[in-house]
Amino acid sequence: MNLVDRILNGETRAISRAMTLIENGDSQSREILRGVFPHTGRSRVIGITGAPGSGKSTLVDKLAQAYRQQRKSVGIVAVDPTSPYSGGALLADRIRMSALYNDEGVFIRSMATRGHLGGLSRTTYDLVNILDASGKEVILVETVGVGQDEIEIVRVADVTIVILVPGMGDDMQALKAGIMEIGDIFAINKSDRPQAEKLEQELEAVLSLATRPDGWKPCVARTIATQGEGISNLLQQIESFELFRKGSPQWAEQRRRSVEESLINLLKESLLEIAIQKNGVWDRIQAASHAVRDRKIDPYSAVEEILRNLK
Amino acid sequence: MNLVDRILNGETRAISRAMTLIENGDSQSREILRGVFPHTGRSRVIGITGAPGSGKSTLVDKLAQAYRQQRKSVGIVAVDPTSPYSGGALLADRIRMSALYNDEGVFIRSMATRGHLGGLSRTTYDLVNILDASGKEVILVETVGVGQDEIEIVRVADVTIVILVPGMGDDMQALKAGIMEIGDIFAINKSDRPQAEKLEQELEAVLSLATRPDGWKPCVARTIATQGEGISNLLQQIESFELFRKGSPQWAEQRRRSVEESLINLLKESLLEIAIQKNGVWDRIQAASHAVRDRKIDPYSAVEEILRNLK
Repeated sequence: MNLVDRILNGETRAISRAMTLIENGDSQSREILRGVFPHTGRSRVIGITGAPGSGKSTLVDKLAQAYRQQRKSVGIVAVDPTSPYSGGALLADRIRMSALYNDEGVFIRSMATRGHLGGLSRTTYDLVNILDASGKEVILVETVGVGQDEIEIVRVADVTIVILVPGMGDDMQALKAGIMEIGDIFAINKSDRPQAEKLEQELEAVLSLATRPDGWKPCVARTIATQGEGISNLLQQIESFELFRKGSPQWAEQRRRSVEESLINLLKESLLEIAIQKNGVWDRIQAASHAVRDRKIDPYSAVEEILRNLK
Repeated sequence: MNLVDRILNGETRAISRAMTLIENGDSQSREILRGVFPHTGRSRVIGITGAPGSGKSTLVDKLAQAYRQQRKSVGIVAVDPTSPYSGGALLADRIRMSALYNDEGVFIRSMATRGHLGGLSRTTYDLVNILDASGKEVILVETVGVGQDEIEIVRVADVTIVILVPGMGDDMQALKAGIMEIGDIFAINKSDRPQAEKLEQELEAVLSLATRPDGWKPCVARTIATQGEGISNLLQQIESFELFRKGSPQWAEQRRRSVEESLINLLKESLLEIAIQKNGVWDRIQAASHAVRDRKIDPYSAVEEILRNLK
């Protein structure tokens, strides 16, 4: 049986193998993604994002356990800011720590954030599609931070949970601003901390001012992930958003726009590939990189020269 | 006098104007950047990065003040994760809070993280070049978080300071891993907290294992930014790295590679622009975005079809 069929069959080894090929940018990966694509679109994809120290992984663990209790199969893609220095060790630690380690109904993948040709968000999208095609009913995508790349990652999600923690300091306001747009649900984790009340009030105030194009009013859920508190409430809110989203034409348009952006990115990558295959182009880029570094020519003129030579 | 000359003259209004044009992706901005480019390369660019709540802005403030005491002119580019919802207000707050507000030797610019054509790191690079050409001797670039985009931003810096804070939680290890590569100097801020000792030991342990291609051994500085403690030590470490870097051939090569990457990005953008100007291409992308969203075709095949039509 070929790899695509084995993925559709839900075989763990096949899923892992395909993910490795995708992460390595292997030439086979496009064929695989093409093969699985018609079988995608059935999973519920939940994005979970929050700063380091917000208890993200614990919350993901508890959510996964809750879905397992509902007998749903679960896939987890964790986008970790690991570097070549320590990636392997962290991955192993992470998996060992999880209560889900020995559960065959759960597939966990940690993804390094560096070295993805075509960007982190595309690789995430591809891995989610593999899990989707493999029949996972729920897919949890966990990302760190508030960078633009993280914001793009959550575009693959049907619903996005943003985790905030009381007492994270004065940059909190800025953080909230940056993630306002991407959060469908806000979880105040570690909500037994004294400043939880204050954070909730501030957050409600910010949320009451914002108007989303789709009309959804983001809700706030208090959690203490380490104790499993607030998880069932969170599940209900996810359910509510699902109901809303399925009836929302704006949501469908939003999704289309996000697909449009990834198509444009893919197109850019392909155009570059085609250009670089032409004789001498790579050498010209190399030469230009020296000249620009030494400030003999500005980057815009350098690229224009390369383009003139392309024609 | 034209805008470029006024920038080279160090006129604040001209700098602001140019930055707005760049941030808006105005067609004049390339011409301006071309004009200023031959006059760049004289500033010392210092990148400062750290998670929300790490006291980044305060540290930037104190560093700026210290350089002002040395009678150096200072430019600050703060890359804030603000959204259209609250960007303006946050910017105003930020500037009002700063002790540097009334100092004419300091130019402060807050930059939104969204909506930059060609990416956040390119816009940052462009703004830094404007400040550089305007004669600012020191440029501080402040970014939040550990995303890939943030990592790219620090590539514009001659030296990068990563801020860590004791007791930020168990995701700290992952955070450290992701930023290991980009930190030339690590500042342990809020170092009067009890876990400072532990963090320093952990950090030294991680740093002792890592080998950087350029041979630099990243150093650790304790700071309490709110009280101005450790700032002069930090300045010395910046000085040490400057001395090291200027004699390092690997550093020059590293810089070339980072220029190469930005040239490639620029080339991709230009290739896309050229493609989209052709008849019907934009319509085809639109149609494909519907088809892919509705899973009638996979993104890879959709883009290949567009490419076939281009030829």
